Amino acid sequence: MSLVIHGIGELVTADPAAGDGPLGVLRDAAVVFDGGRVAWVGASGAAPAADEAVDARGRCLLPGFVDSHAHLVFAGDRADEFAARMTGRPYAAGGIRTTVEATRAASDDALRANLRRLVAEMARQGTTTVECKSGYGLTVEQERRCVRIAAEVTGEVTFLGAHVVPPEYDGDPGGYVRLVSGAMMAACAPYARWIDVFCERGAFDAAQARTVLAAGAAAGLVPRVHANQLGPGPGVRLAVEMGAASADHCTFLADADVDALASSPTVATLLPAVEFSTRQPYPDARRLLDAGAAVALATDCNPGSGYSSSMAFCVALAVREMGMSPAEAVLAATAGGARALRRGDVGRLSPGARADAQLLDAPSHIHLAYRPGVPLTAAVWKDGVRQV
Amino acid sequence: MSLVIHGIGELVTADPAAGDGPLGVLRDAAVVFDGGRVAWVGASGAAPAADEAVDARGRCLLPGFVDSHAHLVFAGDRADEFAARMTGRPYAAGGIRTTVEATRAASDDALRANLRRLVAEMARQGTTTVECKSGYGLTVEQERRCVRIAAEVTGEVTFLGAHVVPPEYDGDPGGYVRLVSGAMMAACAPYARWIDVFCERGAFDAAQARTVLAAGAAAGLVPRVHANQLGPGPGVRLAVEMGAASADHCTFLADADVDALASSPTVATLLPAVEFSTRQPYPDARRLLDAGAAVALATDCNPGSGYSSSMAFCVALAVREMGMSPAEAVLAATAGGARALRRGDVGRLSPGARADAQLLDAPSHIHLAYRPGVPLTAAVWKDGVRQV
Ligand SMILES: [Zn+2]
Ligand SMILES: [Zn+2]
Repeated sequence: MSLVIHGIGELVTADPAAGDGPLGVLRDAAVVFDGGRVAWVGASGAAPAADEAVDARGRCLLPGFVDSHAHLVFAGDRADEFAARMTGRPYAAGGIRTTVEATRAASDDALRANLRRLVAEMARQGTTTVECKSGYGLTVEQERRCVRIAAEVTGEVTFLGAHVVPPEYDGDPGGYVRLVSGAMMAACAPYARWIDVFCERGAFDAAQARTVLAAGAAAGLVPRVHANQLGPGPGVRLAVEMGAASADHCTFLADADVDALASSPTVATLLPAVEFSTRQPYPDARRLLDAGAAVALATDCNPGSGYSSSMAFCVALAVREMGMSPAEAVLAATAGGARALRRGDVGRLSPGARADAQLLDAPSHIHLAYRPGVPLTAAVWKDGVRQV
Repeated sequence: MSLVIHGIGELVTADPAAGDGPLGVLRDAAVVFDGGRVAWVGASGAAPAADEAVDARGRCLLPGFVDSHAHLVFAGDRADEFAARMTGRPYAAGGIRTTVEATRAASDDALRANLRRLVAEMARQGTTTVECKSGYGLTVEQERRCVRIAAEVTGEVTFLGAHVVPPEYDGDPGGYVRLVSGAMMAACAPYARWIDVFCERGAFDAAQARTVLAAGAAAGLVPRVHANQLGPGPGVRLAVEMGAASADHCTFLADADVDALASSPTVATLLPAVEFSTRQPYPDARRLLDAGAAVALATDCNPGSGYSSSMAFCVALAVREMGMSPAEAVLAATAGGARALRRGDVGRLSPGARADAQLLDAPSHIHLAYRPGVPLTAAVWKDGVRQV
């Protein structure tokens, strides 16, 4: 079944070779999907016929968002902890461990239902590729369950047993690192593509993180790292050293961190919805872009530090707070996310790419930043099939 | 046709007399709509029967948002001006006059279609009452056309001929004030409930604003004022002096302004989506609340300084940036907006109020701030009729 979308006012291919400027824009354009792939892009008047046709009526079509960082396998929420944090009230029972407890107690079906609800919510907001991490199980069996359930909805599964040291290993982080790198890795690697670690003061130090990443690499997983979120630290340089696809957060960077990112293929993945929900300073995207680093935007959707599933919101924050132009932010939310996942088939709308696209109820990509908070996604296709 | 909504996990009545705390919350509750009004609220198990039933499945029901400040009768957009502003590029052709030119050139049907598109977009986001200003016509005929079209969609029409001095009156603001207060007022007052003026350096000074507001009052309109948005000034005190329902923006306040608001019924209406889109400092809601002033949140949806139509986004910003708790922000977006429009029949869900309500895809009102950017509105009723 082939489909032609014609009358596109602004076609953002996110492929500079396919159109004008960094976003590869074509105006008054059409796109043809066939066999789940982009078969053709060009002028609307020159579009070949297809089995079905959609008139975009002058609106903007762009690639589906690629959300390369999300924690979606969990139970419960932490709304009360959020409200306490934002109003300066003390709150005893917070933190990742709260979610670990709720997740461990939940049935497979409860975890699955929550995960599918969030993936559907993301699809309605234009996200067609989502990465999904474990990290709220923290035992061999619970982590295996989390990656197994995540693998039901995405190929981009990340094993994050090294999210935090669980209560059972209080005072023995080394023992937990051995578990993660040994039995837990063996149990989880078959379901995962990526190995991740939270390298931060209070979580895992550079040596522990290196051990986990090396064990993951030995099991065939590719590294990505939670790095430099809460303060300066060794995470970014470790990510580059280990050949990670992405160093995520990058909020507190030394010049050497920026240099390391700029001179490596490791993507700096920025997660501004977390800074919004924690009142931390925003990462400086401008500094990274000016240095020549590759930048992605992602939601980090999770029940603790930031529960937004909206890539459009991240785009708006990146423009308001992080020195990105609307075009740079949209590129980071599509092609940038694809690069952070080492995917050449998504995050662009040029021939050969997957037919993952969203139609905006707006004439241009600028509206994603110009109209913050407004759900602009009017239609979504994944592999050429209409989702929304 | 009566309707019962049962199984409501958290019913926010926004009426402290009807439930717990400032939001008047009832848990495991039900509400009955009959004849377009709230007929009953109480425990879910005790709900009377009705013609139709909806199961809220534990989710949160709250009043439809009351957006008491919006500029929706216009043509064109200013996306390129926005992108230039956010990236520090010079942009020659910006400002309100750009929109005035496009609006004057547009047909009635084009203005009507754009207005209805935005009102529908707001309804999908939970807004059931919206105020709508003129102010992009700036001739007698054009302003009359704008209030006439606005009156097709809302009873809360505001005549804002004194938005900016139009090019025809360059160098003669006094002449324009006479026109607004005279022939334009006579033409527009029959379609409007409110008289508004942009009292700011570069727009209208206190004496000019007083002239316009007094002429409006003489024509039966109630004052509201654009005040203290871009710098300190006389707007807020003028609003209080003139018995305005609301002083809007309140970004730059002297202690005397706060005192004046706190000791008067004039509502301080805060419009944080504008500060988001202009990188201005946010108004200090905490200071106003602590002083005892009444506070409302509204979008100011307009194509120039802030084009968000999302009240939920305003709630999230108020919590992140303005020192409001989630409960205070939700109250300001419902009951606060109603107070700013001097409406006792909307912005609450207690018996006698209009059956204007929204069901969230979330268990609590906190999620409006906890999940920024996510479209959480699952269903909307206006006058008891399902809209979304
Ligand atoms: Zn994360
Ligand atoms: Zn305004």
